[in-house]
Amino acid sequence: MKEKHYIGVDIGGTATKIGLTNHAHELLDHRSIPTDPDRGPAALIDDIASAVTRMASNTPAAIGVGCPGPLSPSRGIVFSSPNLNGWENIPLQELMQTRIGVPACIENDANVAALGQYAALPLEEKSDLVLLTLGTGIGSGTIINGQIFHGHHETGSEWGHCIVQPNGRACPCGQHGCLEQYSSATAMTIIAREEIEKGGDTSLTSGATAEMIVNAARDKDPIASSVLNSACLYLAIAIINIQHAINPKYVFLGGGVSGAGEFLLEGVVEHVRAQRWSAHDDHPIIRLAPLANTAGIVGAATLAQQHAGA
Amino acid sequence: MKEKHYIGVDIGGTATKIGLTNHAHELLDHRSIPTDPDRGPAALIDDIASAVTRMASNTPAAIGVGCPGPLSPSRGIVFSSPNLNGWENIPLQELMQTRIGVPACIENDANVAALGQYAALPLEEKSDLVLLTLGTGIGSGTIINGQIFHGHHETGSEWGHCIVQPNGRACPCGQHGCLEQYSSATAMTIIAREEIEKGGDTSLTSGATAEMIVNAARDKDPIASSVLNSACLYLAIAIINIQHAINPKYVFLGGGVSGAGEFLLEGVVEHVRAQRWSAHDDHPIIRLAPLANTAGIVGAATLAQQHAGA
Repeated sequence: MKEKHYIGVDIGGTATKIGLTNHAHELLDHRSIPTDPDRGPAALIDDIASAVTRMASNTPAAIGVGCPGPLSPSRGIVFSSPNLNGWENIPLQELMQTRIGVPACIENDANVAALGQYAALPLEEKSDLVLLTLGTGIGSGTIINGQIFHGHHETGSEWGHCIVQPNGRACPCGQHGCLEQYSSATAMTIIAREEIEKGGDTSLTSGATAEMIVNAARDKDPIASSVLNSACLYLAIAIINIQHAINPKYVFLGGGVSGAGEFLLEGVVEHVRAQRWSAHDDHPIIRLAPLANTAGIVGAATLAQQHAGA
Repeated sequence: MKEKHYIGVDIGGTATKIGLTNHAHELLDHRSIPTDPDRGPAALIDDIASAVTRMASNTPAAIGVGCPGPLSPSRGIVFSSPNLNGWENIPLQELMQTRIGVPACIENDANVAALGQYAALPLEEKSDLVLLTLGTGIGSGTIINGQIFHGHHETGSEWGHCIVQPNGRACPCGQHGCLEQYSSATAMTIIAREEIEKGGDTSLTSGATAEMIVNAARDKDPIASSVLNSACLYLAIAIINIQHAINPKYVFLGGGVSGAGEFLLEGVVEHVRAQRWSAHDDHPIIRLAPLANTAGIVGAATLAQQHAGA
């Protein structure tokens, strides 16, 4: 009998990645195609189907799709995704199944990325984890007992919108003081620009990207250091709250900002240490996410495998 | 065949409650005895055994015990409980089983209270919930899929120590800005005293209890209103973070401060509404906990029944 293969798809606003895995969650092949969401889901699914045909010599056993939400995994519907212009109430699970002819499941993109990070852990290290993806916004996924955690409304794990500063910066979501308004790449550039316009001492210009801010902070630029320190402080508060809410073994930092690597990690860990409580020795291990660009496709394929009961 | 009965025990610093339930989690009988922790666990367990004999005409099927932590449910050990002076590394599960002769399990007191609230919900309303118990401190318990949620370190659900104010009030736990430092009965009395000593306009004296503060706030006393409003604001922030972390159907408010009833609830709900996000309609239903004094014993008996697989 031939080994079963699984397809993982990671739909992003710009690019869609497609990967082929075996039962051990090993990535055998992967490729990237343009998403071009304006042409609608059917055209994208056609391109995904072509890529699957080229990659898999046999029909895969199942296909998993990570997609920007909001969406319902249980109903298989993408409600209305701001990152996929104009997609409204798309029955993505059914469209995938019909076009590709194998069982499909859909899931929030940050959730499949978290499952991908879990799948990549060695067996003896597998345990509950929370992934924070630091990019334009802050996404998050929670894995409990090897499964994506959804909560009652299927919208669990939105740590980017936990409030870390009462009456803090306004968030488009309607709340004030969300983590995303302090520690995302976008937030760092906005806060740096505000500080530059106030006329502080800095080598940065008002168009500085998060990467430029991190590099300047490495060189001890005062405004860059202050912006990065604040991003790390609020991440630390979120991680302490994750500890008291979810009590995971790991908190992983992924996404674009995590490209700042050990430098970012040190800043976060330092603030967590300064706050750590004495009641229990239940502090999570904080690490840079082990999988960089392939977490989404590995996680989506792992989810497909879980749904197939394999 | 006779109906099976279960015993739930709720050990508190002052009193220990013992209840008898049937398979439907109905409380058939209950009583209270002094805990007197200084005499050690063996003497207390003797008294519990006597009470069980008096209450149950037949040997109960199993016994569940809620106890102030820290403790390990899986190992059956109370590590060292500040509320039970001098109890250190007590194998409480084994001691109970040996003395009473039926299977026993132990659990954190806030967790069994949360399970008790869950057990009391009508079948069609049963769903994921978080209980916050507002008293001297703030305890919490999380129920997911009808089970107590523990997390990797068995210390999950410590919402009293989620940070709601960066660089906020110092907490004995070692952190700063814990919810417990703003919204517990103790915190309200301390903050009121500070405000009174600053010489504000109030009818309160510096020895005012949380109950007095709530009553004065009902009469629109300025300092009392401000203290209660602040307690409600920080509870609202914690509840929004619970929404984004756990995504439960319900958040229940229990414990002594919740005796302030609808007045407290209105204040909390108002602050949650002012903050509510627009991304999903996944806001938890916030209610006063339906069971008042018996949640712990009902929850402990329910846990015993779950462990017995019944």
